[in-house]
Amino acid sequence: MHQRTTSPAPERFTVDYRITVRDGRPIEEHARDITIEQTLEVPPDVIPPEHLEQQLTGRIEGIEPIPGSPGRYDVAISYRCDITAFSVPQLFNVLYGNISLKDNIRITDIRFPDSLMKIFGGPRYGIDGLRRLSGVYGRPLACTAIKPMGLPTAELARIAGAFALGGADLIKDDHGITDQSFHPFEERVIRCQEAVEEANARTGRKTLYLPMVSGNFDNLEKQVRFAVRRGVRGILMGPMLVGFDTMRYMAKEYNLIVMAHPALTGTCFHDREHGMTPAVLLGTLFRLIGADISIFPNAGGRFHFTARECGGIASALRAPMGDLAPAFPCPAGGMSLERIPELAAAFGPDSVFLIGGDVLRQADIEEGTRRFLDGIRRSFAEELAEPDDPFVSACEWRAGGVPEKTPRDLLRFAGFRWEGRSREDYKSPEEFDFRGVSRQELTGRFGEQTAFDLRYFEIEPGGYSSLEKHLHEHVIIGVRGRGVLVKEMEEFEIKIHDVAYVGIHQKHQLHNRGSEPFGFFCIVDHLRDRPQKV
Amino acid sequence: MHQRTTSPAPERFTVDYRITVRDGRPIEEHARDITIEQTLEVPPDVIPPEHLEQQLTGRIEGIEPIPGSPGRYDVAISYRCDITAFSVPQLFNVLYGNISLKDNIRITDIRFPDSLMKIFGGPRYGIDGLRRLSGVYGRPLACTAIKPMGLPTAELARIAGAFALGGADLIKDDHGITDQSFHPFEERVIRCQEAVEEANARTGRKTLYLPMVSGNFDNLEKQVRFAVRRGVRGILMGPMLVGFDTMRYMAKEYNLIVMAHPALTGTCFHDREHGMTPAVLLGTLFRLIGADISIFPNAGGRFHFTARECGGIASALRAPMGDLAPAFPCPAGGMSLERIPELAAAFGPDSVFLIGGDVLRQADIEEGTRRFLDGIRRSFAEELAEPDDPFVSACEWRAGGVPEKTPRDLLRFAGFRWEGRSREDYKSPEEFDFRGVSRQELTGRFGEQTAFDLRYFEIEPGGYSSLEKHLHEHVIIGVRGRGVLVKEMEEFEIKIHDVAYVGIHQKHQLHNRGSEPFGFFCIVDHLRDRPQKV
Repeated sequence: MHQRTTSPAPERFTVDYRITVRDGRPIEEHARDITIEQTLEVPPDVIPPEHLEQQLTGRIEGIEPIPGSPGRYDVAISYRCDITAFSVPQLFNVLYGNISLKDNIRITDIRFPDSLMKIFGGPRYGIDGLRRLSGVYGRPLACTAIKPMGLPTAELARIAGAFALGGADLIKDDHGITDQSFHPFEERVIRCQEAVEEANARTGRKTLYLPMVSGNFDNLEKQVRFAVRRGVRGILMGPMLVGFDTMRYMAKEYNLIVMAHPALTGTCFHDREHGMTPAVLLGTLFRLIGADISIFPNAGGRFHFTARECGGIASALRAPMGDLAPAFPCPAGGMSLERIPELAAAFGPDSVFLIGGDVLRQADIEEGTRRFLDGIRRSFAEELAEPDDPFVSACEWRAGGVPEKTPRDLLRFAGFRWEGRSREDYKSPEEFDFRGVSRQELTGRFGEQTAFDLRYFEIEPGGYSSLEKHLHEHVIIGVRGRGVLVKEMEEFEIKIHDVAYVGIHQKHQLHNRGSEPFGFFCIVDHLRDRPQKV
Repeated sequence: MHQRTTSPAPERFTVDYRITVRDGRPIEEHARDITIEQTLEVPPDVIPPEHLEQQLTGRIEGIEPIPGSPGRYDVAISYRCDITAFSVPQLFNVLYGNISLKDNIRITDIRFPDSLMKIFGGPRYGIDGLRRLSGVYGRPLACTAIKPMGLPTAELARIAGAFALGGADLIKDDHGITDQSFHPFEERVIRCQEAVEEANARTGRKTLYLPMVSGNFDNLEKQVRFAVRRGVRGILMGPMLVGFDTMRYMAKEYNLIVMAHPALTGTCFHDREHGMTPAVLLGTLFRLIGADISIFPNAGGRFHFTARECGGIASALRAPMGDLAPAFPCPAGGMSLERIPELAAAFGPDSVFLIGGDVLRQADIEEGTRRFLDGIRRSFAEELAEPDDPFVSACEWRAGGVPEKTPRDLLRFAGFRWEGRSREDYKSPEEFDFRGVSRQELTGRFGEQTAFDLRYFEIEPGGYSSLEKHLHEHVIIGVRGRGVLVKEMEEFEIKIHDVAYVGIHQKHQLHNRGSEPFGFFCIVDHLRDRPQKV
């Protein structure tokens, strides 16, 4: 007999599929195919009966023919939330992974239970948060775009500064400006951010610069960290380019505003009988995975969304959706200054208007930006407040409430103490078993930006540290007395200036079996996992 | 005047777009729109003349009307390679980012110069490499799939073992089996890998198990590392689910076989006038970013690819493509044992046949797998060789060309030397001015995965280190004698156990003005910039 989790009726989410039947088979068969294809993916005769009992396949919740459209149906199918493994890639896989390769199936709506929405989290800032940060109320936010790709970095920065002086609320990179050799990411971010900050110092306002982050897997997070250290508070990202979950993760980990770009999503929308509606992907799903602002090609620009599709996106971003914050719709794609009244009428105040090329086309970019803002103010009653910046970078957070933010030049050593540093508790005694251990944090949590922390520990005679393991490694240097490192099944004596190493997930513990204090430096990665008791 | 890179004629890659004109505008205008939309994305009147000179926009290389299809054209457009920033996300963005949101444009072919292919790298193993690993020649490899999702881990492992005993060459997870609470990733990988290894010990063959990796951004790499440590040599991944570059990175960083799953790619193919052909995405592009095996839904199964489209994928995976290794096409999607002769005729020996449900349907899974292999052997002349396993995990690689690859537990200290570590030159004397400095690298370059390196330096009386600055910070701990840190305009005396800090871009130099050696530890980030002379 197999052991199974038997918790009763796990929660489910429901997907509405619009299905066009062209092969003469009954709609019920098409619906049933989906319930298996997206879950167990085995022939029906191979499904274990327990799987059906536990409703591990999709469950048909309703089938409605569409009046006046013979052969077309709205089919609601629910899935157990836990089959998503609560990961974004697997959520997308369950929604549309294999059936993307079938014809005539389109997702038109998704309804998640509160619990699932809480896990994925939604926008960190959303409409309210962005208004607080920028201090702009009563009107849409004005967003401009730094371009074209290929300008020297100094020129990109000059454009950024002019946008900010002209009053843009948000400035994004063009999404094709990434880390090209002619304007490398780091240099560009430094200069554009500086230009915007200088402008802010003059205007007293809070224009936000959102650089495009589109690096390879191995340097993308480095790019984000670099930007955060330079004071950047938000990023532009194409979830389809870098991976859907990459956006959710960066927003959460670095407390960032995220503006989602629709690059490469168009294949989902092109055929009205296939893929998913723009409202589902650019609205519901991008909001679920953290977009504070979702850019889409507005009707009547260079692209082919209809006004109704654009309205659907806006509604999916702003309508009640559990506890998720509403997000800003951002109509774009060939918008011009003359079209502001039309945008105003279509999207109302809780939106972001993105005008790129038409502002750059103005003889004077600062003046062009001012015209952009004036255009918005003619349609809305602006109210300004003091920009409120509650931003704390994730790096600083981790350190907790440390008072010092500027690294000291020198920590003078005397009596196994370092000036300006205090002895702290080693760990929470409720959580771990240890005896007679003290800790002094020396560097890494006092405003340094190093990838490592240096700490000094001292263990009294007869004392020991907690028996634990973790993914991060230790480098230990003996400073005082003698100690014993117990690592996996081995013991190592540590004397002064010996250097010991504890590897990934190696169980370890330090003992002082001598009669004088055992002191040692311990160097660890700054960003590290929590120790686990073993 | 702006300074620009003026290297002559940067290399270009060429994309063939099939365009269907429905709006009466000339094809030249449609083509020109693409050249700008995918690069500078500004109105034509805003393009700086230098950008045109430097050919930063796409360049139309040819326009051919399609005979017998009025209004349809094949348009070849080339782009500068460097606008991709040599990153996969930006490559996809240039290929099809914004125009995915337009209608009637389909990518039918892409031609990359050798240099670009080298950078992205292609398959690490490819057909030859996988044959060497498995020792199977002369016939297609047989791949089975562990499923359905929801079985207890022990049962999944039992199925894996039976597949391996039955002679499957490759065993993959069903792509919906990820990290669900009822079969968590780590437990599942341990047990399935063990089951396959036990079977291998009995059969003397080398069946490879490829677990599905589909975690969130923050745990995906951890999952891969976990699998690699458990002896796994390959993974199944959906590039569209986790991000295209994620696959390339994991393959490269961990020296893994990657099998690409087409989940969610179907929206690219559905409309024959939109997106890209299956051969371009599942063939050319997936091969470019490292797929050793590319799964696709074969004609006549549950999905709707045509035989010609499937042939196109196989050809794109196997045809000459610079120095890239050929990759295996893997027809799948509702294949049954009876269809083996048909698969054999369509795809020949250099392919992977994936049969999932129909093997599981057999009364005895081991016997069913044997039938699968027998079916293949009836169509092909199998030749077996000793499986050859040159696998080296990337974790070990990171250390670069140093002799030691496994971190030492303990570096015993004696006479200001550490056992197993040698004194090295401090720096190149041609490049920097210094006197009487030696260096010992202690940790960080010997197989550790720490974010920091620990070094010991010693300066003779009268000696000094180079005067320099850099973005990375130093944490310095006095070990022996006394020294002076000159930092910007200040001096700090360093005695034993004093901890000194050098910040970002602070000019600094260390002096020994005493009469005995001055020794100190210096901790730096593992990834750091080169010092600049000042």
